[in-house]
Amino acid sequence: MTANELYTTILTKKSYLCVGLDTDIRRIPTHLQREPDPVAAFNRQIIEATAEYAVAYKPNIAFYEAQGPRGWESLQRTLEYIPKDCFTIADAKRGDIGNTSGLYARTFFDPASSGLDFDAVTVAPYMGRDSVEPFLEFENKWVILLALTSNAGSSDFQQWPVGGEKLYENVIRTSQTWAGADRMMYVVGATRADELAHIRTLIPDHFLLVPGVGAQGGSLAEVSRYGMNQQCGLLVNASRSILYASGGTDFAQKAADEARALQQEMAGYL
Amino acid sequence: MTANELYTTILTKKSYLCVGLDTDIRRIPTHLQREPDPVAAFNRQIIEATAEYAVAYKPNIAFYEAQGPRGWESLQRTLEYIPKDCFTIADAKRGDIGNTSGLYARTFFDPASSGLDFDAVTVAPYMGRDSVEPFLEFENKWVILLALTSNAGSSDFQQWPVGGEKLYENVIRTSQTWAGADRMMYVVGATRADELAHIRTLIPDHFLLVPGVGAQGGSLAEVSRYGMNQQCGLLVNASRSILYASGGTDFAQKAADEARALQQEMAGYL
Repeated sequence: MTANELYTTILTKKSYLCVGLDTDIRRIPTHLQREPDPVAAFNRQIIEATAEYAVAYKPNIAFYEAQGPRGWESLQRTLEYIPKDCFTIADAKRGDIGNTSGLYARTFFDPASSGLDFDAVTVAPYMGRDSVEPFLEFENKWVILLALTSNAGSSDFQQWPVGGEKLYENVIRTSQTWAGADRMMYVVGATRADELAHIRTLIPDHFLLVPGVGAQGGSLAEVSRYGMNQQCGLLVNASRSILYASGGTDFAQKAADEARALQQEMAGYL
Repeated sequence: MTANELYTTILTKKSYLCVGLDTDIRRIPTHLQREPDPVAAFNRQIIEATAEYAVAYKPNIAFYEAQGPRGWESLQRTLEYIPKDCFTIADAKRGDIGNTSGLYARTFFDPASSGLDFDAVTVAPYMGRDSVEPFLEFENKWVILLALTSNAGSSDFQQWPVGGEKLYENVIRTSQTWAGADRMMYVVGATRADELAHIRTLIPDHFLLVPGVGAQGGSLAEVSRYGMNQQCGLLVNASRSILYASGGTDFAQKAADEARALQQEMAGYL
């Protein structure tokens, strides 16, 4: 999917909501546990209930691979349920030396290899340029590079000063020589909304994937105010607040209610 | 496995060789391609041929997950073939916010969840302390933290000066407050053998996992001279030079020859 196609979807749906599919088999409602694939059955209903309000879906790969081979089958099925007009993100935080990153890229971008065909994958920057470039060799696919994350540990290294700038600023500046705003996005944690305005001066044109709204405490109003650019430039993720809005048989309806509330707030900011 | 148990195995086998199972289905000898699980069949013969000379095996997870669910089944089978006296490393380079890292830890450490039961997993440090700690909650399991890698991109961020020290030094220093030498090891690329002596002054007691000997060009003599401590403290990895020593029906014998040569050189350094 191109940036223009994504922006068109954002305008059509009046939304920049990304639904994070952090589907924990231990938290799926009881009545679905007897399904042959409870995770896929749960995701299918979540996707159907929220697709009107969401422009992107982001399976968190850890939740699937923790289930072994059947988890990867759940992931394959889940990806098939996502409507084609939605942007799909493998939240995998991968990154390794070049030939290994090439295999990770095939995992998420090459259906002939793995059965998966995501639009984007999240990548950790620690190993540098040649750990990221293999993901960029796939046409119309995206790297979403970790810049500033929303967890407490983001202060351990990301915030350290590196030659007059913080490490995460250095990551943003350096990585801009690897690909443009048509191939790369950045993860920027919403609990740092005060830093969004500053980050926008560094990368005015890039899409930002913003986790941490909802269960992690970020404010959608602040993120939108400081993070938006002329082509929206934001994908704001909510996971647990949508997936687990109810633990009962009405979980899909409650998920839709949560997604709609976020979409309606977003429509106001667009 | 404890550090003492690992050291005992090192003394018994007179080896600190780790065989990297970067098993690329495209490079498996033709006669194995008709097996129901060619990757597992190849790995089984590699493991049987090299177990006398190796103290550790390190499947590179990218090569398995690129094959989708059947790749994870190959990984499960491979782990079953590795003798119990060998240390097993999931080379996965994972790391995410706490609850997600907890799921990645279950992937590699909790056989009831994923079918896998590794001794150790490689973890990327970018997201800081709370992205690493969930892996440390599993008893007798190890985190092998990326410090200085062997690829060209290691100069992009790892070598940058952070408040008077390089980022990788900062990672080593900071992470020592998270766990001791009984639970944590570090990845240190062998192509930087000149930095090993310096790293030893920072972490005299920790095991170092050293990739990059062989195909990546590192020198076993230099690594051993500058990296060894009183309990050996080294796991030196070789992957492609062993796995693909021959592309024919004699691949296992040639792999054994390569592993034996490395073991005999190591015996001289111990």
